[in-house]
Amino acid sequence: MNKMITLEKNNFLYQKIADNFENQILTEILKSGDKLPSVRVICKQYGVSLSTALQAYYFLESKNLIQARPNSGYYVNYSSRRFSTSDKSTQPSLNIDDNLADKLISRVFQEIARHDETVMFSLGVPSTDLLPVAKLNKAMVAALRELPASGTRYEHIQGNIKLRKQIAHWAYTWNGKFTESDVITTAGCINAISFCLSSLAKPGDTIAVESPCYFGVLQLAKSLGLRIMEIPTHLQNGIEIDELKKAIESKKINICLLVSNFSNPLGSCIPTENKKEIVKLLEINNIPLIEDDLYGDMYFGKQRPQTCKTFDESGNVLLCSSVSKTLAPGYRVGWVIPGKYKDKVLNTKLYQTISTTTLTQEVIANFMENGRYEHHLLKMRHALFGNCLQLMRAVNEYFPENTRITKPSGGFMLWVELDEKINTAALFEQALKQKVSIAPGRVFTTQDLYNNCLRLNYSWIWNDKIEQAIKTLGAIIHKMLKQS
Amino acid sequence: MNKMITLEKNNFLYQKIADNFENQILTEILKSGDKLPSVRVICKQYGVSLSTALQAYYFLESKNLIQARPNSGYYVNYSSRRFSTSDKSTQPSLNIDDNLADKLISRVFQEIARHDETVMFSLGVPSTDLLPVAKLNKAMVAALRELPASGTRYEHIQGNIKLRKQIAHWAYTWNGKFTESDVITTAGCINAISFCLSSLAKPGDTIAVESPCYFGVLQLAKSLGLRIMEIPTHLQNGIEIDELKKAIESKKINICLLVSNFSNPLGSCIPTENKKEIVKLLEINNIPLIEDDLYGDMYFGKQRPQTCKTFDESGNVLLCSSVSKTLAPGYRVGWVIPGKYKDKVLNTKLYQTISTTTLTQEVIANFMENGRYEHHLLKMRHALFGNCLQLMRAVNEYFPENTRITKPSGGFMLWVELDEKINTAALFEQALKQKVSIAPGRVFTTQDLYNNCLRLNYSWIWNDKIEQAIKTLGAIIHKMLKQS
Repeated sequence: MNKMITLEKNNFLYQKIADNFENQILTEILKSGDKLPSVRVICKQYGVSLSTALQAYYFLESKNLIQARPNSGYYVNYSSRRFSTSDKSTQPSLNIDDNLADKLISRVFQEIARHDETVMFSLGVPSTDLLPVAKLNKAMVAALRELPASGTRYEHIQGNIKLRKQIAHWAYTWNGKFTESDVITTAGCINAISFCLSSLAKPGDTIAVESPCYFGVLQLAKSLGLRIMEIPTHLQNGIEIDELKKAIESKKINICLLVSNFSNPLGSCIPTENKKEIVKLLEINNIPLIEDDLYGDMYFGKQRPQTCKTFDESGNVLLCSSVSKTLAPGYRVGWVIPGKYKDKVLNTKLYQTISTTTLTQEVIANFMENGRYEHHLLKMRHALFGNCLQLMRAVNEYFPENTRITKPSGGFMLWVELDEKINTAALFEQALKQKVSIAPGRVFTTQDLYNNCLRLNYSWIWNDKIEQAIKTLGAIIHKMLKQS
Repeated sequence: MNKMITLEKNNFLYQKIADNFENQILTEILKSGDKLPSVRVICKQYGVSLSTALQAYYFLESKNLIQARPNSGYYVNYSSRRFSTSDKSTQPSLNIDDNLADKLISRVFQEIARHDETVMFSLGVPSTDLLPVAKLNKAMVAALRELPASGTRYEHIQGNIKLRKQIAHWAYTWNGKFTESDVITTAGCINAISFCLSSLAKPGDTIAVESPCYFGVLQLAKSLGLRIMEIPTHLQNGIEIDELKKAIESKKINICLLVSNFSNPLGSCIPTENKKEIVKLLEINNIPLIEDDLYGDMYFGKQRPQTCKTFDESGNVLLCSSVSKTLAPGYRVGWVIPGKYKDKVLNTKLYQTISTTTLTQEVIANFMENGRYEHHLLKMRHALFGNCLQLMRAVNEYFPENTRITKPSGGFMLWVELDEKINTAALFEQALKQKVSIAPGRVFTTQDLYNNCLRLNYSWIWNDKIEQAIKTLGAIIHKMLKQS
């Protein structure tokens, strides 16, 4: 605790200066290409040392908001034109299942362990450069030493107790108050969601989800025989509560699943007041809420957004998450805080898999101790925000004029809406030939929607190859537009 | 290949001598307490060197078939009295589900990661002493070095390709001819079974299983909403084919699950001819067969038993197994060879968990290379057979006269039938108080059966503590008999 307070004090001055400029850039008071005051002017203006002024500029540079030009100074390197208007919502129709997207989804999914030269904008996989591999290996060596029989034994069914303590502790960042007995570990977040759905829903039941919705969830729900009801969703504020209400009134909904923070694929974030209202609405109607908070720790703003679970007094919310986006997808370490459904979910885990991998749980527990996770996330958020801004800039630069994009405030995903004449399923195939992989919009729905949309993942360190890949995509889209 | 041939040649003489004695002991031509010929007599009789004669006796001693007494020589240390007659079968009634055993199962299962002083005869968990922990750690260090990003990345959905090659290669031991593309890795054997059931069965479907049946399978099937049909099962030869036929004729059976080799809990092993017949019967009736071959590698005889999958020409058999009993339960590495159901099972894996742990798959692949697995299994089978004989001896010694036991020819499990007046659920509770844990027979059925039976696991290196635990059990049973 003391350590964190000290950290904040040291950061205070340069951070304050950087924040000022960041606000001016994001609100376009300072526009792309504008020259910033010299470092000496900053020193005078804020009464700070040269090193503090430089630190502020380095910070902004690391976020890709500004750029140094040799012998000239710092310039704004960011443009926010063409964001989607914030009052737009998607308009799915009521519950028309189909299977047309399945083949497309399989093609996208198959790439998950691809190690060739293809630039992968298609999957929410973090770049290895963003992961603390060396530190995890150190924690691994410690785990091999500390665990009985080096982790060859079965772990407790509920999960490694050290890890569960760390997860419960970490929940404080979103005002969750839990102990290790509230947590069940899983083999990743989708595995947690799978356990929840298997425990609470039966074939023929209806599940309400956002539209568009992560294709993995759609496929899982369909494989369990569930009927999917896609609810209109605001590009920035997530699911439309009034539409959810209407759906509940008009039809039996058995379960609801939401990605509350920096959703996949929209990057939307449900405002705190809406979260409270959703929790209440579902509780009154006796509809369990599975909350996918996989991206919640990767916020670009000043504060970790809260969760629906934060406001869950009755235990009706099952919060699912993992370290697959922040530390190590290949470790398969995730968790669920299942509230009053704990016994059911624990039994499902036991029946389907007994326990999850002993060793990787211990490694993550080791890593989360002593503030290492927080330290790592600080750096990662920073890098992601920089990547996000670069991607937005590049899309603005290379894609046609009438392209519309979201404005993520966290997470991994940029949602792009192209001219209505462009079919992004065709774009996917054409781009793949040129070694660029995207996620076409059609895979995020069971309906005939989002055919002109795509999702781009910016969890890769920006470099010339990625810049070129976006340029290639832009060129294909331009060509498709001409041919249409 | 050359290596193995050489090995056989070197072993030939002492092995031949040992085999002779083993046969005489197992058929009770030589009885417990009988003195064996002196080493010099053996030299003369067989025309071998002193060292070869000693090797034969050491081998028999390591199997706990004989015992050296100081300044006296070698004595037989084995008795087979009171084995169950081999023509006995279980007699479950038709398909009467119940939930009475659930609480009992939970109590037994909860102990899986127990690290206290309790002697655990209740779960099929191998003793750490039997596992090659140091060698696995070496393979782990190599895996961390060799894997891209030290295994933090997602593995291919189907599984680590090196591991799949090793598994396909290993299938040669039971005459299976497969390639890596036929194999899907899973998080253990029950996870493989869970994927198969999720892929092929829907709620309300009926699954045919052996009776008694591993409680994990019963719980899993019930949690998926399946109706369970228990088929009469021979204590040595597994499921009764005529009874299975009758069941198929009288009722719609959608799926069948069998533990073909050294079943849990009976230790029964389906004869080769029966395996062929079962495969044909189920194929004709279009009933997929999930074959659990978890214990197949741990045979006490001369040959690895074949599997149903060996005789599967149409791809109707889904063979499931893992290294949880032989190398590392905590690694969660298993697999399925799903035949013609591959796409379905692969999709289920993808939807429920994306991929399984990258690192532990690579470690097992490393370990299986270069004949290390075979070498380890040789030692492990040996130790298990010794433990099995010790357990049988101790049960004979300490349990009441009318106790009946099976005669395992492989695996981990001894099935014990007590006087009908003894309720083993009560025995479980009383024994637990004295720090001995057993699996009561009632947990292996959905019916009101096997209440006077129990399953004992002998995958623990025999020592005084275990001897004492069996003595304690015997004393409790004697007391219960007196009170009844």
